[in-house]
Amino acid sequence: MIGIFDSGVGGMTVAHAVEQFCPGRALIYFGDLARTPYGSKSPAVIRRYARQNIDFLLAHGARMIIIACNSAASVAAEDMRREFSLPIFDVIGPTVRRAVEISSAVSGRIGVIGTRATINSAVYPRKIGQINQELRVYGNECPLLVPLVEEGWLNRRETRMILRYYLRPLKMRQVDTLVLGCTHYPLLRDLIQPRIGKRVRIVDSSIEVARELRQYLNDHPECDTTTGGSKFYVSDMTPAAAATARRIFGRPIELQVQQAGG
Amino acid sequence: MIGIFDSGVGGMTVAHAVEQFCPGRALIYFGDLARTPYGSKSPAVIRRYARQNIDFLLAHGARMIIIACNSAASVAAEDMRREFSLPIFDVIGPTVRRAVEISSAVSGRIGVIGTRATINSAVYPRKIGQINQELRVYGNECPLLVPLVEEGWLNRRETRMILRYYLRPLKMRQVDTLVLGCTHYPLLRDLIQPRIGKRVRIVDSSIEVARELRQYLNDHPECDTTTGGSKFYVSDMTPAAAATARRIFGRPIELQVQQAGG
Repeated sequence: MIGIFDSGVGGMTVAHAVEQFCPGRALIYFGDLARTPYGSKSPAVIRRYARQNIDFLLAHGARMIIIACNSAASVAAEDMRREFSLPIFDVIGPTVRRAVEISSAVSGRIGVIGTRATINSAVYPRKIGQINQELRVYGNECPLLVPLVEEGWLNRRETRMILRYYLRPLKMRQVDTLVLGCTHYPLLRDLIQPRIGKRVRIVDSSIEVARELRQYLNDHPECDTTTGGSKFYVSDMTPAAAATARRIFGRPIELQVQQAGG
Repeated sequence: MIGIFDSGVGGMTVAHAVEQFCPGRALIYFGDLARTPYGSKSPAVIRRYARQNIDFLLAHGARMIIIACNSAASVAAEDMRREFSLPIFDVIGPTVRRAVEISSAVSGRIGVIGTRATINSAVYPRKIGQINQELRVYGNECPLLVPLVEEGWLNRRETRMILRYYLRPLKMRQVDTLVLGCTHYPLLRDLIQPRIGKRVRIVDSSIEVARELRQYLNDHPECDTTTGGSKFYVSDMTPAAAATARRIFGRPIELQVQQAGG
């Protein structure tokens, strides 16, 4: 089974994209709602949670892992690959490759928005620089976007104002490509596009990791990823989370409560 | 020692008030930054965290406890008093008594703002009704205020708009008294007063619990609350938390990182 974890329900945008790109594959999802959000916490704490979440997914039959949380991928993916011997995908690698491909053909100016943990880790500029040192990368942390999305404030005036505030420095830098470096942000895409500029290409990390996973599964037919029903676990259950899950999938999602770690 | 816990650093408004009202008493503070915020989590999860936090404070020498988090007080205070045999104060009781005293002398219409957990628990209307059934209580959940305060957005236009949106239903009800049912909200008091109306009396739960503690200590001179230096523990350390702590106390606060529970 394909294990996916996130700090909450935002990573369900990844699970939804995997359903679209790899139809029929069985997923097991874990959303750490009891400790959400990760993006304002320290790297040490996020790494401990990532380790516990992977242990949980392994215990429930996962044979490959997708880290569907940019904050966790930013500070924990490399450690987790050293610690666990199974394929670990994350949202950052494929997103970086796609952004480089698009921006190299235009002006080479990439903007990245994400949580504080993701932007402070500088993982995007570092990985983009490893592929093409000519590109310029401008990041901006957007800590209020996750709470706004989780409240369902997807088209309120305050959300549009806050988005304009967060996007302004990137617009001033005339980026040609914008990375949505948090799995909550695709839900704001229709507000982001007009505010960053309609010619700016938006790269959605949820879609990129699903595309890469499809390629991997095609290249590795020996992978015994069971087909069948998907399962969704959360470490806490709240009505707001159930509503966000329904909004992402466009259908009700049955969430089961279980703990990972303490 | 007087043990105080909160989901993060918001409860330091209580610690600061206790310093003012009970000068020289030694405090031990625990802020659960690794799992913050509590206000959007379920009662079951909040109770588990409250239990672990009290165990932590006991192990560090606390002989009485203040639950400085309205969300935890709302859903866990009564269980904790059954489970632990030491004095447990919380922000809600004294705040309720003060609001009833003020409002009974005016029109008897009390507004309460708080997190989702606090408002959904209906603890304020229930406790106010136990004292005076004639009073009317109107609550409104304000889930975005904690992230706004933690970002330090204390005088931005977006914050003022969001406050106006949250306060409007209470203003329409013509409340004469407004309870700040979350320890983060005192930091927004100067924005709240003009938006709810300058004649509305604001009750700050941080101050009320400190006042009640002073009374208790005067009435119980046998209480061996050590005098001396206070200690501040957090389960995670972030620059934003350190900045909020400094803003609350008006001086730098030394935070030590330790875990409570898993």
